Amino acid sequence: MSIPEITQKLLAAKQDEGLSFADLEKIIGRDEVWIAALIYRQASASPEEAKLLVEALGLDASYINELTEYPLKGLGPVVPTDPLIYRFYEIMQVYGFPIKAVIQDKFGDGIMSAIDFTLDVEKEVDPKGDRVKIIMSGKFLPYKKW
Amino acid sequence: MSIPEITQKLLAAKQDEGLSFADLEKIIGRDEVWIAALIYRQASASPEEAKLLVEALGLDASYINELTEYPLKGLGPVVPTDPLIYRFYEIMQVYGFPIKAVIQDKFGDGIMSAIDFTLDVEKEVDPKGDRVKIIMSGKFLPYKKW
Amino acid sequence: MSIPEITQKLLAAKQDEGLSFADLEKIIGRDEVWIAALIYRQASASPEEAKLLVEALGLDASYINELTEYPLKGLGPVVPTDPLIYRFYEIMQVYGFPIKAVIQDKFGDGIMSAIDFTLDVEKEVDPKGDRVKIIMSGKFLPYKKW
Amino acid sequence: MSIPEITQKLLAAKQDEGLSFADLEKIIGRDEVWIAALIYRQASASPEEAKLLVEALGLDASYINELTEYPLKGLGPVVPTDPLIYRFYEIMQVYGFPIKAVIQDKFGDGIMSAIDFTLDVEKEVDPKGDRVKIIMSGKFLPYKKW
Amino acid sequence: MSIPEITQKLLAAKQDEGLSFADLEKIIGRDEVWIAALIYRQASASPEEAKLLVEALGLDASYINELTEYPLKGLGPVVPTDPLIYRFYEIMQVYGFPIKAVIQDKFGDGIMSAIDFTLDVEKEVDPKGDRVKIIMSGKFLPYKKW
Amino acid sequence: MSIPEITQKLLAAKQDEGLSFADLEKIIGRDEVWIAALIYRQASASPEEAKLLVEALGLDASYINELTEYPLKGLGPVVPTDPLIYRFYEIMQVYGFPIKAVIQDKFGDGIMSAIDFTLDVEKEVDPKGDRVKIIMSGKFLPYKKW
Amino acid sequence: MSIPEITQKLLAAKQDEGLSFADLEKIIGRDEVWIAALIYRQASASPEEAKLLVEALGLDASYINELTEYPLKGLGPVVPTDPLIYRFYEIMQVYGFPIKAVIQDKFGDGIMSAIDFTLDVEKEVDPKGDRVKIIMSGKFLPYKKW
Amino acid sequence: MSIPEITQKLLAAKQDEGLSFADLEKIIGRDEVWIAALIYRQASASPEEAKLLVEALGLDASYINELTEYPLKGLGPVVPTDPLIYRFYEIMQVYGFPIKAVIQDKFGDGIMSAIDFTLDVEKEVDPKGDRVKIIMSGKFLPYKKW
Amino acid sequence: MSIPEITQKLLAAKQDEGLSFADLEKIIGRDEVWIAALIYRQASASPEEAKLLVEALGLDASYINELTEYPLKGLGPVVPTDPLIYRFYEIMQVYGFPIKAVIQDKFGDGIMSAIDFTLDVEKEVDPKGDRVKIIMSGKFLPYKKW
Amino acid sequence: MSIPEITQKLLAAKQDEGLSFADLEKIIGRDEVWIAALIYRQASASPEEAKLLVEALGLDASYINELTEYPLKGLGPVVPTDPLIYRFYEIMQVYGFPIKAVIQDKFGDGIMSAIDFTLDVEKEVDPKGDRVKIIMSGKFLPYKKW
Repeated sequence: MSIPEITQKLLAAKQDEGLSFADLEKIIGRDEVWIAALIYRQASASPEEAKLLVEALGLDASYINELTEYPLKGLGPVVPTDPLIYRFYEIMQVYGFPIKAVIQDKFGDGIMSAIDFTLDVEKEVDPKGDRVKIIMSGKFLPYKKW
Repeated sequence: MSIPEITQKLLAAKQDEGLSFADLEKIIGRDEVWIAALIYRQASASPEEAKLLVEALGLDASYINELTEYPLKGLGPVVPTDPLIYRFYEIMQVYGFPIKAVIQDKFGDGIMSAIDFTLDVEKEVDPKGDRVKIIMSGKFLPYKKW
Repeated sequence: MSIPEITQKLLAAKQDEGLSFADLEKIIGRDEVWIAALIYRQASASPEEAKLLVEALGLDASYINELTEYPLKGLGPVVPTDPLIYRFYEIMQVYGFPIKAVIQDKFGDGIMSAIDFTLDVEKEVDPKGDRVKIIMSGKFLPYKKW
Repeated sequence: MSIPEITQKLLAAKQDEGLSFADLEKIIGRDEVWIAALIYRQASASPEEAKLLVEALGLDASYINELTEYPLKGLGPVVPTDPLIYRFYEIMQVYGFPIKAVIQDKFGDGIMSAIDFTLDVEKEVDPKGDRVKIIMSGKFLPYKKW
Repeated sequence: MSIPEITQKLLAAKQDEGLSFADLEKIIGRDEVWIAALIYRQASASPEEAKLLVEALGLDASYINELTEYPLKGLGPVVPTDPLIYRFYEIMQVYGFPIKAVIQDKFGDGIMSAIDFTLDVEKEVDPKGDRVKIIMSGKFLPYKKW
Repeated sequence: MSIPEITQKLLAAKQDEGLSFADLEKIIGRDEVWIAALIYRQASASPEEAKLLVEALGLDASYINELTEYPLKGLGPVVPTDPLIYRFYEIMQVYGFPIKAVIQDKFGDGIMSAIDFTLDVEKEVDPKGDRVKIIMSGKFLPYKKW
Repeated sequence: MSIPEITQKLLAAKQDEGLSFADLEKIIGRDEVWIAALIYRQASASPEEAKLLVEALGLDASYINELTEYPLKGLGPVVPTDPLIYRFYEIMQVYGFPIKAVIQDKFGDGIMSAIDFTLDVEKEVDPKGDRVKIIMSGKFLPYKKW
Repeated sequence: MSIPEITQKLLAAKQDEGLSFADLEKIIGRDEVWIAALIYRQASASPEEAKLLVEALGLDASYINELTEYPLKGLGPVVPTDPLIYRFYEIMQVYGFPIKAVIQDKFGDGIMSAIDFTLDVEKEVDPKGDRVKIIMSGKFLPYKKW
Repeated sequence: MSIPEITQKLLAAKQDEGLSFADLEKIIGRDEVWIAALIYRQASASPEEAKLLVEALGLDASYINELTEYPLKGLGPVVPTDPLIYRFYEIMQVYGFPIKAVIQDKFGDGIMSAIDFTLDVEKEVDPKGDRVKIIMSGKFLPYKKW
Repeated sequence: MSIPEITQKLLAAKQDEGLSFADLEKIIGRDEVWIAALIYRQASASPEEAKLLVEALGLDASYINELTEYPLKGLGPVVPTDPLIYRFYEIMQVYGFPIKAVIQDKFGDGIMSAIDFTLDVEKEVDPKGDRVKIIMSGKFLPYKKW
């Protein structure tokens, strides 16, 4: 899947308006990562949320409808080439088995939901170099037996 | 890469000893995820750390040396099939572009290091169903210009 | 991942005992598909369930422990070559988008869980040729907004 | 293969008309999943079925012809990235071998047809969370010996 | 999947016995291609067929059981490298769409079954060079509407 | 490679003219499968053949030239997703090794040519369900030693 | 990812102006490789750098903005086909393990950063044939333990 | 290709002897990267070089012969998963086109040889963090016209 | 990479002019294979060569510039589907190891250059069927030790 | 496919006997490339040829039988990593389309056979550096029309 046209329109408008995702968070009342996911068409908005976003970006109402549609999700190649995104692939490759072992140790056989799920990005100021903090919270789903 | 033999030995010993990763964290003084990464040969220990782990698992000292070697990293297929590990691939596919957009908004052009990096797994007790909390912290590395 | 050794042992014992999966269902009190998943190490048993299975198959108790472990899941190549299994890949390729459209029409944006999930296989006797009936039931998980 | 242009036209018209797939099922006299498959050009209609659909969606008759053509089938990447569709890939990966074992136990060597095949999607209301029910019914085809 | 051990045993015995597949056809009363498929564990025999084959090859009865099992089917890499086998891949790549067009022209929307299916290999003597004749016969399966 | 534009033009004209491939076979004096291959640009025509085809389809002479060009051959993805075409991939996966064994048994080391090659599709009327008959005839090419 | 449109515009202007990358290095005050990376949209410029480049190439100011955006990085297929670029893939395949061994020997467990990183291309005049000299300098990042 | 057995033997001996690659460089009179390439069987030694290496590692002479053989080269998966080795893949993905542009600017149409080629790894001490310096030198090979 | 637009223009003009590659060889003074490579943008011409080609094809001078550019090389899918081109892939798969063994036997450890390289295609008239003769000549490049 | 065990045995014996492929050519009366293909099990010998080879290598007669079997052909990964073998892949990628154009120009629509085919490797002594000469000769096979 390639990046949707509407994404490019919204990102250009965001830049023209001089708005950060943090600004949009305050306006829309949703987390900035979720808003970015909405803009990349990886999430769907309520009509109200879509309206708030479109107005904040100074765009006309014709964009609202598309933002409420349930998109086909997943972007980019099988193995990402962008270094920032690749690091998350690398974390999965290197720490995937250890994370599985620890989660199962704590919870039993099951998974962390990627649907009943939130993800925050924070900036940790650090004199030795600022740090990116990613906090994921997903419901534990135990395997059902039947 | 397939799972190393030593991993299977260490995990079996851990089960025989009835030790959780959290127990090992207290004994070794390193985070349980890092210890799991060590056991899966995705990290390398100091001789002291290796000795503490091997003794805690009731194994003889012959395992110490291998745990201090710098391993070839990365485990499993290109796209993971295990549902727990796959969810991290899915998060990268669905939220990779939004995370990139937010990180760049906050930090500029660069990446979150996966080397100067820590990862914690916590259990959030929740009456609607416990939650898995993953906290990643990676140094922001701005692209050098030259 | 290749088929585990224990699977071959258990299937051979099942054949020697002349037991069908339906027989095992009555003995263990779990659905035959789940039992088959356990035998292929795609599910993990309680010690009691493992004991019942191992005894039914006339094997010694040394197999019990492995059956309670939480396995690495997913078997076979990226695109299955076995015609029976391939048909499920084909159904996903041909009917995946239509199913997505209908589920979203009925439920909104979200997924059918493959974890809080059951699957039954039934035989429908039919004079024009018997039919295989597959019934899947998975909890609907709506996308969380945050 | 990418999603055909006609699909986007029909889905937009369906949304404009405020019709659900269940509504279309009543109008056309075919199951809603089959209708969705038709719209995604994974199935071909009779001229009458095509006429009923096109009229229900308030479109002009020029779409009828294309809907009666026998399409090239199969949509999306080798491994789907959309989480809803991926879950069916995961079910095939995790439960494919167990399903094969149970079907062969009940029927002998052969397959479930994906052509002489029906698929229904139902909503099971459940106080612990509604469930998606998928019912597949495919003719059992025994391997012919010659 | 790699070639099963039993295949190598059976082929070696066939060579030692100086039997052609055509000879086996006469002994077992099944087509030589089906017998070759059985030997490569792509088909399953009745106990009688297995007994006839094993006896013809001068092997002891311990092989009979495995030949009656329903095998996991499909052999070789995604794109075959062996020139003889590759030509069938090439025929599918070059003539797949034309064949589809002609079959649909003659039969409507559906497929040729590869299960209710026979395949013969014949030698056509020809002064300009002998020819290989492959005759496939598969039941036409029309797409079911529901 | 995607389906060429000229193919879509010719197929649309064929439908408008109400001509089957069998009709075209009578007009052009070439087998219907070869004509379909020509239309899909997997074969090249003589100017006379191209003229006959274009005239039969009621198109102007401007299409003749392109039909005489030697095309780049091979259509569709590495593993076909269309069920009708996939069955030929499946036949190659399941029966490829057996066919190789039988051909070599009859002819020695070599291949069936896919170039000095013909392919026919026939309809076998059968009260238990009509059958698709595919007859391939390719020159046997023995490996040259040098 | 395909080569961006702006890249083709900038390269065409560079050729029209008769400027080498070495010339641009002198004008912009950045290394020629970095400037080439900027033109291929693998790096992002400050507004001043973008202005200097655009002016040097005789283009209007409308290109400046895009050059300051943080691009999605990575170009070309998984395995490059261009012989010049492939040689770097080959070096990674052939010398990757040896380089890893030597770096770890000198520095311990960690990596060479590809972000805090510079790369120079120099021409070494040599009577036996000029040589291409590539100098990479990346910060060593030791694996953090936690 | 997997890592050869001899590599593991030689690396273990190197560790037992407490020798660094730099030590081996002094003993053998070849660069440490080339020696590492030899140990990983990516290069072939003269009998004298092999003898010096084997003696330095305290191994018996039986290893000499294998080290003089011309190996099949290339190690690891198509896209490396080890983070250290991956960075070289990333450099190729991100800087491959820019390097090509600069080399062609300086030399014309051709490539940097990866055969008439040397590669050095150096440690640059730096108070802000030591740096890995990689110096590649490959003969420029202009495309021959004929 | 897809076939460049200029290639299609040049090939159409070549056909309109009724010129063979052998004719172009005489006009331009370069081998016909090199000229074909130039037309497919796998080689770059001097301005004089480009001018001769463009004039021979009766095209205007605007094409000259593009033909002198150094192209991104490599065309077609990872495994070619066109039967003529595939045969060269097959030769590499079947005879690659034997060729390597013979070259190394004659020359030592090294490669045949594909850059300092020429390739001729000749027609050998033969009463049993004409033969295609391919003559490749590439400089042997011994591995440099350092 | 991995390199067969017999290949390693034969190559070791060849080295022990101090025989070159050219020596074997004189002894067996077949081209050295064909003999190398036989040793790599890419070709099959007559019993006489096998006997000559096995005797020349000083091995016992037990190897003869296997060398007369018709092997499964094709060795190595989809894209070769060994630089010597890769160059043939590169030649196919870079010159495949041009070669196709020239062959079709000279012969019409068809292919060069890789079965009725010979391949020679020669050493051209050259003061500027010796050259590897590869001569392929394959029967032209015109596409049959039917």
